[in-house]
Amino acid sequence: MSVDGPVIRKIRLDLPHPTDTDHAGDLDRVLRGLKAQGIIGVQTPLSVVAGLSKILRTAEFRVTATVAFVPILTLLRLEPANTPSRNFGLAVDLGSTNIVGALVDLDTGATVGEHSMLNPQVEHGEDILTRTHFSQQPSNRKRLQVQAASAVSLIAAQLAIRLGISAGDICCISVSGNTTMTHFFLGLETYHLCRAPYVPVANYFPIVCASELSIDVHPCAPVIVLPNVGSYVGGDALAGVLVSGIHRHENVSLLVDIGTNAEIVIGNRDFLLVGAGSAGPGLEGGAVRHGMRAAAGAIERIAINPQTHAISYHVIGDGRPLGICGSGLIDLLAELFSTGIIDSRGKFLLPAKSSRVQLHDGIAEFIVAEAKDTATGAEICFSQPDIDNLMLSKAAMYTMLSVMTDAVGMSFNELDTFFLAGAFGAYITADKAVTIGIVPDIELSKFRLLGNSSLEGAKQVLLSVEALVEIKRIMSAITYVEMNESREFMNDFMAARFLPHTDLERFPSVRDRLGKR
Amino acid sequence: MSVDGPVIRKIRLDLPHPTDTDHAGDLDRVLRGLKAQGIIGVQTPLSVVAGLSKILRTAEFRVTATVAFVPILTLLRLEPANTPSRNFGLAVDLGSTNIVGALVDLDTGATVGEHSMLNPQVEHGEDILTRTHFSQQPSNRKRLQVQAASAVSLIAAQLAIRLGISAGDICCISVSGNTTMTHFFLGLETYHLCRAPYVPVANYFPIVCASELSIDVHPCAPVIVLPNVGSYVGGDALAGVLVSGIHRHENVSLLVDIGTNAEIVIGNRDFLLVGAGSAGPGLEGGAVRHGMRAAAGAIERIAINPQTHAISYHVIGDGRPLGICGSGLIDLLAELFSTGIIDSRGKFLLPAKSSRVQLHDGIAEFIVAEAKDTATGAEICFSQPDIDNLMLSKAAMYTMLSVMTDAVGMSFNELDTFFLAGAFGAYITADKAVTIGIVPDIELSKFRLLGNSSLEGAKQVLLSVEALVEIKRIMSAITYVEMNESREFMNDFMAARFLPHTDLERFPSVRDRLGKR
Repeated sequence: MSVDGPVIRKIRLDLPHPTDTDHAGDLDRVLRGLKAQGIIGVQTPLSVVAGLSKILRTAEFRVTATVAFVPILTLLRLEPANTPSRNFGLAVDLGSTNIVGALVDLDTGATVGEHSMLNPQVEHGEDILTRTHFSQQPSNRKRLQVQAASAVSLIAAQLAIRLGISAGDICCISVSGNTTMTHFFLGLETYHLCRAPYVPVANYFPIVCASELSIDVHPCAPVIVLPNVGSYVGGDALAGVLVSGIHRHENVSLLVDIGTNAEIVIGNRDFLLVGAGSAGPGLEGGAVRHGMRAAAGAIERIAINPQTHAISYHVIGDGRPLGICGSGLIDLLAELFSTGIIDSRGKFLLPAKSSRVQLHDGIAEFIVAEAKDTATGAEICFSQPDIDNLMLSKAAMYTMLSVMTDAVGMSFNELDTFFLAGAFGAYITADKAVTIGIVPDIELSKFRLLGNSSLEGAKQVLLSVEALVEIKRIMSAITYVEMNESREFMNDFMAARFLPHTDLERFPSVRDRLGKR
Repeated sequence: MSVDGPVIRKIRLDLPHPTDTDHAGDLDRVLRGLKAQGIIGVQTPLSVVAGLSKILRTAEFRVTATVAFVPILTLLRLEPANTPSRNFGLAVDLGSTNIVGALVDLDTGATVGEHSMLNPQVEHGEDILTRTHFSQQPSNRKRLQVQAASAVSLIAAQLAIRLGISAGDICCISVSGNTTMTHFFLGLETYHLCRAPYVPVANYFPIVCASELSIDVHPCAPVIVLPNVGSYVGGDALAGVLVSGIHRHENVSLLVDIGTNAEIVIGNRDFLLVGAGSAGPGLEGGAVRHGMRAAAGAIERIAINPQTHAISYHVIGDGRPLGICGSGLIDLLAELFSTGIIDSRGKFLLPAKSSRVQLHDGIAEFIVAEAKDTATGAEICFSQPDIDNLMLSKAAMYTMLSVMTDAVGMSFNELDTFFLAGAFGAYITADKAVTIGIVPDIELSKFRLLGNSSLEGAKQVLLSVEALVEIKRIMSAITYVEMNESREFMNDFMAARFLPHTDLERFPSVRDRLGKR
C-alpha cells in the first residue's frame, strides 16, 4: 500500500473461511487481511462491526473494504467483492454566495459531476459581517451550521441521483472556504474572528464524521475542512497556493484571488507572504447599479469598436442580459478608456464620443444594452458613480498587489507567474485588466487563470493524503502581512485611482497603446 | 508526560493570551500547550471545540484539559483550572447474573465506590444460551444491548450521586465479561459464537464512545471492552491472568475461575494454555434444590462438629438463611464427608450418624437449617440428588484441572501458585475444597483467592494504558486447549466422582486426616 493516495481507498480482501484451527473473530479476520496489505492499526466504528458477520458470509469472505486514511485509519464499510462499487468523494467550495460541489471518482481522479447552489445562509445577510453579527446568538449559529450542512447534503443528493448512486456511497468530503464560512460550517463561534487580535476558534480543524454535522452521506465519512492561516486568510486561499504550486518553485510568483475580499500570496519554495484586504464591493458588482454575480444573464465580455463605437457583448447562458458581472465590468471600463469615452480619471468626456453616453438626472451614463434587448425590459447602463466605485476597488486591488511585492523588495516584472484565482479570476481578460491597471503591466503570458482553485484544492485533498500534509507545510511557511494601515498605503492608493495609474511608466504597454491612439 | 499512566489524564495548561503577534486559534493554542507537555497529535471532537473559546476566556486561559490516551489521543474536555476536578473512570464486571461497577479515582488509583445490580438481561433467560437464542432477532439483540447499557448508566448514576459528582464527570469505562456478554453489550451477533467453528464477531473490540452505546457518562468517554481469546475464553478470563500475573513469572502457576463455566489458565512467562468447559450448574447452586447465588441470605460457611454433629453456619448479611451458595455447598459436602455422614461415593450412610439425616419420600436428606430458623419458614436441606449433582460438577472441575496440568506435563505439586478467581473463588475455603477433591491436594499456602479478578482487571486497564497492551500480549501468548472431548477425559472424570478421588494417593492430606478419624 503506497503511502500517498486518496484519503479513502477500496481494498479487495479474499479472506480464508474460519476453520477448527483458525477461529479468529470476523473483525480480526478482516483486520488481518488489511494488515497483510500493509494497512495496520485500523479502527472500526461499531456500526461497521455490527453488520460484518453477515456480509462476510453472504460474500463467502470475498469482500471490498472501504478504508479511510484520515484522520486515523478507519474501516468505513465492507461490501461483497462481486458487487460493483466505485469510490466517491465530494469536494466543496464553500463560498459565502455560492456553494459548489464536485463529485470525484477517487480511483481515477476524475470529476464525474458538479453542482452548485446559492448558499442558503444569504437569507441572514448577503455579506459576511451581517451573518457574523447574526451568528452571535447560539441558536442562530446552529441555524447557519444546519443551513450549510443541508446545502452540502442537497448537493450530494443531486450528484448521487445524477450518477445513479446512493448519497451513502460518498465516503468522504473536503471543504474549502474562508475562515468565517468554515467556522459557520462547523458551528463555531465567530465572535473573536472580527475583534482584535482576530483569533479564530481553530486554524486546524478536527476531521469530523459526516453524521456529527448531519450531512447525509456515509455517516462515518470523514469531513476534512481545509485549515486557515488566521481570520483573514482561509482554507480557500491555501487551496489556491496548493493548486498554483508557487510554494514548490524556485522563482517567486504571485497569486491573487480578486474579489470584495482579496487575498494575495507571494513567494516561492523558500518563503510565502500572504496579505488580505478589502477591495470594496465594486469588483463583484455590489457597488455598481447593474452589476451582478457571474451567473446566467450576466454580461461577462464586452468589446467597443474603436472606430464605430459599436458595442458587442457575451452573456453567460447566451440569453438576454440581466446585468454585468465583474469580468464584464473590467472589460467595459477598459474599453471606455481605450476608446477615449472616459479619461484617465475615469470621467466621461464631453462632447461624448458615443451616442450611448447620455445624461440622466444630470449624471452621465453609458448604455450597455438597450431596453429592447435586455431580459428585464429596462436598459443596462454604467454611470459615473458606478465608474467611481469600480475605480476605488481597482485602486485598492492594485495597491495591495504593490504592498505585497514591495514587502519582498521585488518589482512585478520579476515575478515568474501571476496567478488569478477565484470565480472572478476564471473569467478575467488579462489585457483588459492591465488596461485599467487593476493588475500590473507584465507580459500577458505570465498571467495564469486558476479558475475555482478553492474547489480544485478541495479535490486534491481528497485525492492525496499528502496534499493535506502539503497544506500544513504551506501554513507553517506562510507569514501574514498587514495591509490597509500605513500612510504609504494611502499614498499608493491615491496614485492608483487613475487609468491605468498616475505613473504611466509602470504601465508601458498601455502607454504605448494610448500613444498610438 | 510518562508513557504509562491512566487512560484519561487531566493536564493543567497555563496558556498565553492571544496578542497582535500571537493570534493562533483557540484550539491551536490549547494543542500547542499540550504539545509543550509532550502530548502530540491530539484529536478533538467538535463538541469540545464548540465550547472552547468561552471557557478559555472565562478561565483567563488557565485551564485543565482532560485527555484520553486511548484509542487515540483525544481532548475530551476543557475546564477552568481553578475549579476542583477529579479524574474518574468506571470499571465494570459484566456478569451474566450480576453487573458490578467500581468508580476509580484515576489520579490516586483508589476505588471510591462500588455498586452492583442484577443484570436486567436475566429477564430473557437466566442462562446465556437462552439469551443467545433470544438475541437472534435483531430487535432483541438491540434490546439486550440497551439493557446492558442502561444498567451501566444506572450504576454510573448511583456512584456519581454517592460521590457528589455528575455522571458526565466519568470520562472512561472499561468492561470485562465473557465473550457472549461483551457481544451483547456491543449489540453484536452471537449466532456464530455457539456454532462450529465458534467464531466471535470480534476478539479485539474497537474502543467506542459512550454516546455510541447510549451510556450516560461523558459522551466522548472511551469505552474499552476487554478482548476475548475466542468464544469460550472471554475478557474476564484475560483480566484474571492480568491480575494474577502468572504470565510474568518464571514458575508455572494455574488460575481457575470456578463456576458453571470454568476457565483454567496454566502457564508462566514463556507459555500460557487456556481451557474452558462446563462444570455443570451444581457449583453455583443451580442444580441443588436449596442452592442459591452468593447474595444476602445465603449460607456461605458451614461447620459440623465432629463429635456432636452440631451444625453452625454463617449467612451473608447476617440474617436468617434463604439457601446455600457455592462456598457453603463445598463446606457442607466436605463436612458431611469428614464427619462420616456420607461415604466417599457421596452417599448417605445408614444408620445415620446425625439426627439431621432424614428420609423424605424415600430420599435421604440432611437438614441444614430447621424451618423455625429460616427466612422462608421452610427447612433448608441437602438431599442425595443434590449431592449427586454437586459431585458431578466437582468431578468435572477436577478433571479439567487435571487435563490442563497433563497438557503441560506437570503435577499439581509443581505449581507455584493456584489462583482461585471469580465471585465463587473469593469465598471458597481451600481446605474444604481439597477435602471434596474439587481442587488438588497441594500445600494450602499455594492457594490464592483473587476475588473478582474480572472487575480488578477492568480497573487495571483504566489505570494503565500498558495494561491493555499487556492483555494483548497475553492473548498472543495464549493457546487454547480443547477439553471434555477425549475418552481419557471420561476416564478421569469417572475416577473423580469420589470424595476426594478414587486414587487417594492424589490426596495425601485428606487420606491422612481420614486415617486419623
